[in-house]
Formats: sequence, structure tokens, C-alpha cells
Amino acid sequence: MSENTNHQVLLVARPEGGVREDCFRLEAAPRPEPGPGQLLVRVIYLSLDPAMRGWISEAPNYREALPLGSVMTGFTVGEVAASRHPDYAVGDVVLGRQGWREWAVSDGSDVHRKLDPAEAPISTALHVLGHTGLTAYLGLTEVGRPAAGETVMVSTAAGAVGSMVGQIAKLKGCRSVGLTGSDEKVARCRTDFGYDAAINYKTAADLEAAIAAACPDGIDVYFDNVGGPISDAVLERINVGARIIVCGTMGIPDGGPDDPPPLGPRPNRQLLIRRARMEGFLVLDHLASLDRLPAELVAWVRDGKLGYREDRVQGLENAASALLRLLSGQNLGKMIVQVAADPTLSEG
Amino acid sequence: MSENTNHQVLLVARPEGGVREDCFRLEAAPRPEPGPGQLLVRVIYLSLDPAMRGWISEAPNYREALPLGSVMTGFTVGEVAASRHPDYAVGDVVLGRQGWREWAVSDGSDVHRKLDPAEAPISTALHVLGHTGLTAYLGLTEVGRPAAGETVMVSTAAGAVGSMVGQIAKLKGCRSVGLTGSDEKVARCRTDFGYDAAINYKTAADLEAAIAAACPDGIDVYFDNVGGPISDAVLERINVGARIIVCGTMGIPDGGPDDPPPLGPRPNRQLLIRRARMEGFLVLDHLASLDRLPAELVAWVRDGKLGYREDRVQGLENAASALLRLLSGQNLGKMIVQVAADPTLSEG
Repeated sequence: MSENTNHQVLLVARPEGGVREDCFRLEAAPRPEPGPGQLLVRVIYLSLDPAMRGWISEAPNYREALPLGSVMTGFTVGEVAASRHPDYAVGDVVLGRQGWREWAVSDGSDVHRKLDPAEAPISTALHVLGHTGLTAYLGLTEVGRPAAGETVMVSTAAGAVGSMVGQIAKLKGCRSVGLTGSDEKVARCRTDFGYDAAINYKTAADLEAAIAAACPDGIDVYFDNVGGPISDAVLERINVGARIIVCGTMGIPDGGPDDPPPLGPRPNRQLLIRRARMEGFLVLDHLASLDRLPAELVAWVRDGKLGYREDRVQGLENAASALLRLLSGQNLGKMIVQVAADPTLSEG
Repeated sequence: MSENTNHQVLLVARPEGGVREDCFRLEAAPRPEPGPGQLLVRVIYLSLDPAMRGWISEAPNYREALPLGSVMTGFTVGEVAASRHPDYAVGDVVLGRQGWREWAVSDGSDVHRKLDPAEAPISTALHVLGHTGLTAYLGLTEVGRPAAGETVMVSTAAGAVGSMVGQIAKLKGCRSVGLTGSDEKVARCRTDFGYDAAINYKTAADLEAAIAAACPDGIDVYFDNVGGPISDAVLERINVGARIIVCGTMGIPDGGPDDPPPLGPRPNRQLLIRRARMEGFLVLDHLASLDRLPAELVAWVRDGKLGYREDRVQGLENAASALLRLLSGQNLGKMIVQVAADPTLSEG
């Protein structure tokens, strides 16, 4: 890896029918130089997120699909390598959206905050102290509004967002129940993330019965990262006044821009007879909170009350295959690509 | 009709596959006598409501299905014919839930309030100044929370609830757009209920295109009395932050208790990318408001700002066929059964 080369990953094909490795292409470009008012960031860590499936698809979404030929977008932690920007100095570590590349020039608009390596490992700015943490915290507390004693159900319960939701539910005095896709993850839900109960939805003989057994008082809040048949089963057990946070749709198949949406049981009658609420939550509406994290969240992480797991891969060249692993649920923890050595560790 | 006979309508069969006239049977019983602490109500008007479909079905619902052999339940306006209850005197006109019968004994628990015939026609306590009005008012204002300038879409726009929603939306400074099932109702939406636009969903060549044309700024609030394919088309046009009030599901077929729910496009992705909210509303949660109506609603009716239409049928023996007309959308206005002469009119 040369200091003068900028390896970067381009989006080169749409994921018709599902994300494939050949949707992406690694290329070598010259290292950019910052102009006046700009800084140069060397990317250290890159966050992989389920939402990336939507970012690159032409199916209707909350933003325009990333144009083909663009550098793939993503949250990053990096080090300022050069600066002609008044707010940043060489050596600053920053959380930003520099994307899938080694070096990025920025005018500061896609940089969220400086990180203090003494406070927490800098990679945590991509999960518990970043957009993943905000998704779990704001989605659960602002949309779900759990009250102590209520039952909170979580899908992708051992994932980066789900594992935090489960823990925050416990911190709020709730019963937490997780849905996940392997026995290993079920065990991790119980031991690492403190779930009161966890269900392997792939092996449950009768998923509705398993949910009923794990939720004797019904379900008050459902933090849903999947949609699809798993969520249909959850909906059967919601209580009057239940809140369903629609945070992800990984359990609903991809479609092209002209495909009809996949079919499922209509939820209207259940929402009506339970006077329940189903509401979409998108952390990109709350990016300002990345600059100034909720104090409660920061305190929980500082006090060791929010455990997390990272699933790291090395090198940009492995980012696409790692994304596929994430999208098929094979990750064990927050999926992060290490793009360069972490200077805060080598110094420590 | 003898003063000593109590004609009443019993539920005698479940509406498997749809409500039928032979689900009900008219019978003659002796007129009851009030005991200590009771009053005797002579029913004058009976409200017919789409929700009755659910009350008599064994499909999962917000309350137990009415047992077979019971007198059919329903909101009524009646006159106190005898009283051994301290709060009621002979001649009082009351809004209550006396059901499909001529005479009913009550301990007062199913009586909501006394009506002042000088204030408004007493039948209005079954719609604009009753549960129908509360449904429209509370559902729209508390769940939908429309802001001036927003677009409010209403299904069954010319119906008892829908016509009020459309008018309240206008009173709140919104653009109101109605979906209804005949050209006559479309005309009524425009002339009687002040909709800015109305669409005949049965004859629209391209419903999505018609909705798009009627809602150039998209849809912020959707007051949904139907569900099903009509609502699927509406969902395609919702704005970021939209609110969908799930108030009725007449557009979704009936099913037996063990039938799977009907299939439709999964709404999850649209709710997510629009950060929209879909929430059930049930006026039965707000029965206390029937005793004390919202002041704003009362003032609008008093000042003639909320127009309404009644579709009356005469005689309990015609209640079942009238309910069928209502459930198939053939009513023109609030469907009311006149069970006895209205004494406030003959006196007036």
C-alpha cells in the first residue's frame, strides 16, 4: 500500500435480485491533495451496515441511489493527515462519512466530530458511540417509548443495532426478548447482551408458540430490523397500545425499481384491534446527534453498561465480501473493515 | 306495535364469509320493567356502523364476539319511559347503548348522556355529536395531527365518519381529498362536504395517477376506513413523516377465526423510507368523551360548520338489510334506524 495511491471501491452494478460481490470494484487512484478550506483524511475503520443494500438499489428509497461509478459511501473513522481547514489539525481522529477508500478530501461537511482516543476505542464511534448506537437509542426511546415492566421484542437481536436495543431495554427496566438466526447467537444474546429470552427463529418448530412462551405478558414494543414472516409472527402477540419500530427490512426480499412490493399478511386489522402503532425510523434524520451524542448513551458506554462485539475484516479488498456476510446474517457483532493501522493503538 | 311487546333483533348466526340478513332474527318478547336503581328506555333511533361486522365475527377483535342468541348491540337514542334511577326522569332523552330493541332496562352504565332537544336534533347524538363525530375528531386530531397546509386523504370520504374527517381537515386549514365509490358520492364530497378533490376509486382508470393528480404535494395524513387495494395506492404517495390512521378495514375481506389474514403489499419499506406512522384508532377507547364532547366539535356543529347527511330506515325489522347496505357502501349518509316516533319532533 503506497502512501501515494488511493485504493477505493466503486459501485459498478446494481444489486438486481440481491447484492453481489461484483457490484463493487476495487481500483487504485492517485492520493488526493486538500485544497484551501479542506482536510485530508486517512480512513482507518469503515462501518458496514445493512442499510447499504438500500443505498445502492434503484428501488424507491429515502435517498437517490448512489450513481454507478461512484465511490461507495459509508461511515468511517479516520485520522487527519493534512489540513487546510481551520477546525482540524494533523493527527485529529474524526468520525465522518468518507466512504470505501483509503484517503478522502473533505470540506468538513461530511465530518461529524473529533474523537478522544482516551475516552473509548475509536472504532466505537462506528457503533455504540455512533450511528448504530443512535439508531438503537433513539429508535427505542423516541419511537418505542418503553416503560419499565413492558416486554420489548428485538429482531436481529445479536446484531449491531439489535444487541444494543436489547441492552437498552434492560437498562429501562423492561423484559427483553430476542429473535436471532443461530444457536450461537441465541447463546450470545443471553450471556453477552442480557436478554431475558432469545429464540432461534430458524429452528423453532412453531415460531408463534415460541414467541408466546417467551412473552407471557405479550409484546409492548417491537424493534424490527427485518420485516417479513418473522415479524408477522411477532405481530400476532402484540398488546393493546403496542409500538413497532420499523428500522430495517432485511427479511423482505429485494426488488428492482419496477417490481411490486412483496406480499404479506395485511397488518391493518391487527393494528386496529390492538390500537398499535407501526412507525419507520431512520437514523439519517438524526445525524446532528452524531455531533453531540445523548448524554445517557455516553454514560452507559463509559460505565461499561453497554457491551458490544466487533466483527472485523482487514483491507478494503474484503469489504464487499464482508458486506455479503452481513446481509446474510453471518456476522458476529458489528461489522467493521480495518482499512489502515489504528494509530491510537500502536501508540497506546 | 304494542306497548307491552318488546321487539328485538337477535344475533343467531356468525357472518362466515360475510354478513348476511339471516345472521339476525326479529323476535317479540315481553316489555321489561325497571327494578330498583334502573330505568326503562324506549329506543327511538339506532345507529348502524361498519364496525358491527367485527362485533359479530369470531375473527380476533378488540372485544369478544357477541354471543349467539344475544340482542344485537348498538348505539341508541331513546326516551326514558319509566325510572327508578335517581339520575333519570321520565321524558329524559338519552344517548346510550341499548341495542337493537324497542325497550331496554338499564342501570345507567350503558347510558352516556342526556340530550337537550333544543340544542340539536337528537339523532345527531348518533353521528356528529356522538361516536361517529368522536371517531373523526379524535382520530384525525390526536392520531393524525394535521397541520395547516398539509394534505389529508380520506377513504369512504362521503360516509358518516369520512365526511366529518374531510370537513374537519378543512376547518384545520388542510387540503382535503376524498376517495369514494360512486359519482354521486364524488359530487356530494365536493358540494356537501367541501373536499378540494374527490376520486371515484371504482371508475378511475389509474387510481395511483388519479391520487397523484389530486395530491400534487403528496399526502401527509391518511384517514383510512378501508384498507386493502385502495389504501395500497394511497401509500404510494405519502410524504416523509406521514400519519395513517387505521380506523376501519372494510376493504379487507372477512375471514373466519382460523383463516389467515388476507395478503397485500408489505408496507414496511414504505413506512421506513417515508418515516411514516400507521396507527390503529378505536373510538371505544374514548367512550368517556361521549359524556363530555370536545368543545371545539360542539361549537362547529352549533355554528353549522359541520354538515351531515342521514340515511334513515324505518323499523327494527329493516335493520339487518340496512346494515348490509351500509357494509356494501350503498348508504348515502349516516345510517340510522328509526325504531319509534321521535317525540321531540312531534312536540316541536
